[in-house]
Amino acid sequence: MMVPLEVSARHVHLSQEVADALFGKDYKFNIKKELSQPGQYACYERIDIVGPKDTLKNVSVLGPLRTKTQAEISITDSLKIGINCPIRESGDLEGTPGCILRGPRGEYEITSGLIVAKRHIHMHTNDALKIGAKNGILASVKIKSYERSLIYNDVVIRVSDNFSLAMHIDTDEANALNYQPKLAGELML
Amino acid sequence: MMVPLEVSARHVHLSQEVADALFGKDYKFNIKKELSQPGQYACYERIDIVGPKDTLKNVSVLGPLRTKTQAEISITDSLKIGINCPIRESGDLEGTPGCILRGPRGEYEITSGLIVAKRHIHMHTNDALKIGAKNGILASVKIKSYERSLIYNDVVIRVSDNFSLAMHIDTDEANALNYQPKLAGELML
Repeated sequence: MMVPLEVSARHVHLSQEVADALFGKDYKFNIKKELSQPGQYACYERIDIVGPKDTLKNVSVLGPLRTKTQAEISITDSLKIGINCPIRESGDLEGTPGCILRGPRGEYEITSGLIVAKRHIHMHTNDALKIGAKNGILASVKIKSYERSLIYNDVVIRVSDNFSLAMHIDTDEANALNYQPKLAGELML
Repeated sequence: MMVPLEVSARHVHLSQEVADALFGKDYKFNIKKELSQPGQYACYERIDIVGPKDTLKNVSVLGPLRTKTQAEISITDSLKIGINCPIRESGDLEGTPGCILRGPRGEYEITSGLIVAKRHIHMHTNDALKIGAKNGILASVKIKSYERSLIYNDVVIRVSDNFSLAMHIDTDEANALNYQPKLAGELML
């Protein structure tokens, strides 16, 4: 099965409480672009992620709001701001570091939620049934790329009726892959 | 065969002419650290790589001087400074972009020589004979790394009596691999 590759640049998901602190009570975010995963979107609004060493400015806010605030950055970013971030699956935030988030109306210090996203495939339940993949398994993905072809191990497959088939890598992985638009990978279970 | 993995941060190799322009005529560079490849060293001296969009400051100068000036940066760097750089083997500089190099005593605009280094293995002739590897062949290397294990294809093997066994990746590849010191890869011919 060929899986379209998408690059996730650094971004944050906000909770209601953090959104209120950064943008003002019940601020209504403006949708800039629908993402490949149904119901998910990038907003025009941006925030800063402030670390002890440096700040990541104008970081994209994704919607809709979530129950827990989560910021996804690259290892390059984590070295820049001076916070050592673990590689985690989305939502697996226990024991992760926090940071200061700065919006146009205020700041909020989260005590956890800063992660480097583990590479993963979003897969619709029907696709998973077809190839016998279960939610949470690890797979490999082979990618032909000019001068930097490789096979990723450690690719988590996440299965849901709300997902559309796509593999997500971060910007470090994209640069290390010589990523070009429309690249796809061959899933190997 | 297990191959020690080393990360090459951005650096430059200077020709006599460029060294003269940046540091003054016949400047004597100061050795900071011997590198794993015999006779190669990092200098205390640093220069800036100036692009149309931004500048990479304090870039390491490696010695000894070479016949051709070459600057090796990452794709992350190339996006930052606004110069699109091809992935090339060291020394393969035809058709590569130039940039301005800035030293303490002056600037020099190179018309080519800016590359993203293609990942490669330095191998001594004896090791190559032992495993039947020839200079210039492509191999694969399997690497176990916490959360980011992978198999690199497109790894060039370079063989010489002057080489010591080591695989070189750049900082994008290191971050995308969750690189840790003392990591090694399994060479697969």
